[in-house]
Amino acid sequence: MSPATKTFFRSRWVSVPDGVEELDPAQLAPGFSAAGVACGLKGGGGTDVGVLASDAPGVRSALALTRNAAAAAPIRVCREQCDASAIRAVAVNSGNANAATGEQGYLDALAMRDAAAEALGIEPRSVAVAETGTIGVPLDIEAVTTGVLEAVEGLSGEGGDRFAAAIMTTDKGPKRCTLRAGGVTVSAQAKGAGMIEPGFATMLCFVQTDGVVDDPEAALRSALAGSMERITVDGQMSTNDTVLLQATGAAGDPLPEGLLDAVLLQLALEIVADGEGATRVGRVEVRGAADADEAERVARAIANSPLVKTALYGRDSNWGRIAQAAGMALAGEQVAELGPDRIQAAELASDSAEAELSIALGRGKASAHVYFSDLTHDYIRINAEYTT
Amino acid sequence: MSPATKTFFRSRWVSVPDGVEELDPAQLAPGFSAAGVACGLKGGGGTDVGVLASDAPGVRSALALTRNAAAAAPIRVCREQCDASAIRAVAVNSGNANAATGEQGYLDALAMRDAAAEALGIEPRSVAVAETGTIGVPLDIEAVTTGVLEAVEGLSGEGGDRFAAAIMTTDKGPKRCTLRAGGVTVSAQAKGAGMIEPGFATMLCFVQTDGVVDDPEAALRSALAGSMERITVDGQMSTNDTVLLQATGAAGDPLPEGLLDAVLLQLALEIVADGEGATRVGRVEVRGAADADEAERVARAIANSPLVKTALYGRDSNWGRIAQAAGMALAGEQVAELGPDRIQAAELASDSAEAELSIALGRGKASAHVYFSDLTHDYIRINAEYTT
Repeated sequence: MSPATKTFFRSRWVSVPDGVEELDPAQLAPGFSAAGVACGLKGGGGTDVGVLASDAPGVRSALALTRNAAAAAPIRVCREQCDASAIRAVAVNSGNANAATGEQGYLDALAMRDAAAEALGIEPRSVAVAETGTIGVPLDIEAVTTGVLEAVEGLSGEGGDRFAAAIMTTDKGPKRCTLRAGGVTVSAQAKGAGMIEPGFATMLCFVQTDGVVDDPEAALRSALAGSMERITVDGQMSTNDTVLLQATGAAGDPLPEGLLDAVLLQLALEIVADGEGATRVGRVEVRGAADADEAERVARAIANSPLVKTALYGRDSNWGRIAQAAGMALAGEQVAELGPDRIQAAELASDSAEAELSIALGRGKASAHVYFSDLTHDYIRINAEYTT
Repeated sequence: MSPATKTFFRSRWVSVPDGVEELDPAQLAPGFSAAGVACGLKGGGGTDVGVLASDAPGVRSALALTRNAAAAAPIRVCREQCDASAIRAVAVNSGNANAATGEQGYLDALAMRDAAAEALGIEPRSVAVAETGTIGVPLDIEAVTTGVLEAVEGLSGEGGDRFAAAIMTTDKGPKRCTLRAGGVTVSAQAKGAGMIEPGFATMLCFVQTDGVVDDPEAALRSALAGSMERITVDGQMSTNDTVLLQATGAAGDPLPEGLLDAVLLQLALEIVADGEGATRVGRVEVRGAADADEAERVARAIANSPLVKTALYGRDSNWGRIAQAAGMALAGEQVAELGPDRIQAAELASDSAEAELSIALGRGKASAHVYFSDLTHDYIRINAEYTT
């Protein structure tokens, strides 16, 4: 285990349960294996197809999918053709989102899924499919199918790193961990850098454990609410968001309280920190809102304001921009003046990679927080130069 | 009259009534005079205080103000202390927004207004006040008062250009025109480059005419709905937006049909074209929406998407990003696939300064359009370096 792998929990905003040990992230939770291969979707021979599978027929799972109305073909396949509570395996590509690709795209996603199921010798409905990359380009299904078969042959309990690499697009680096606590192991892999805002958030994320999870759907929903649902890079909900939680229960022990939340929050923060062009992460807390909806609306208005995001980049403690964004979200309401006594913005100008901001609206008792990235020259470069 | 002043109506999206003659924009409509002076709010001695006044006691007017709940002091003074239908004059500064400045800010805006009223010898309630610039900094009211008095002494019927300069902040150049048609004259001055999105839009804009306007409030509201209400630079509603229409009626003729709309739309398009860092203007038309709200929501989601805005900058006909933004705005709805047959995005990649995009949702008969700027390196530079 390299020293680098000890640093997974690096945000001050993550509460880590006691007694968590970090393992080599290549090592998957017992009962899981994975692989990543290059099939030619990415230029330059990058790893672009991955398969992750459980050897436990009784694995339990939960699947969270984007709510974007222009959902990609793999999302529709997962919704319509998979048993979300009993997903054994997932096949992924990271070159082509297979979104807005019509009926052929749907058939291609289904073919990709079926190829994995057949090679693994398991029920097609127990295999999920996830794709990320360019929108609106037909999938090279022959290349992908070849890649899927090759990945299935290469499945390994130490394949976590190669799988994490196989799901990356504009990510600067892999996002993954393997942790041990309370007799159970949890491994996880995520990707995401652009088109990041809830829904539950815009990315791919896979979590495996040999721990017992009584209600995977509820556990995942709860952990997402405090993590992937609370981040934004560019305010854009993706067409392809997918989060898969799989639990074999083979360890016989439950997941330690708070561990899933900590893993997903740290991964969410890594996605924000790796937001396209990002150099810093902000956390804005809105207090004293009239109700939860209002708190959420104000927090998102601040987190998505290009003026606040450029102030975070420029290290400018410009609380006026926070007041303006909050005032916009509250248009038409009676609000006490949002002056410096109500707004904490000093950390905008600090040297820290994580800046904490807050605003007290004085209208009620509801609160909400959102994590967000700064808006930088590199965001423009990446997105003005990334072509269809 | 210089050749440059002949080019006011330069957008293909503006319908100009027949027989419109462009005059020197320094020349105000008969019955109006203006001036601009430097009082030291702007560094470098820039013109930063302006006064514009009508000599007609019976001038009729309409005033549109931001809906931002963190409205600046001058907005609250206009709301609470002015007779919006009978505004004779307006005093403006362009260095300090006087927003989030507490009770003192309110008293300062009132003092600025009262100084102008006294110097002009007219009722305080017939004088409006508008301010734009940095948020949250106390106003140097002595400097501003001195500037107001100086401006009143310098009032001139040829002061349109100096007044237009006195309202500029990050604008690359003045936005103004003087036009003659159907026996009446219309002059107008506007500013705006950042914090631009409705409400009615984020800027200062002043329109004067000697034409007869029967219902200035209705005329202004209608013209704004098709112009300032339809633009976005950064999706940010300002704390200080103000539009003032003044009509003396002295010419005895009505404003030609469509002229006010054309003037405000061209000025709105200049604000977008001069959006912070902008190099191009897009117009997105959403057709086939289930209802007007949905059409509006989808159009704004596309116009404010940083991915679409960087594609406009990068000249990338990336229709997938339009599908994604529309799908986000329609999250949870049943939508036919938003593929290339439904999306016109070719002009994203064109050489033209104005790019026209459209999407057909196939859900109903409602439509909406929004004009927007691209998101560029210079937007980041301007906003990361602009300090409080």
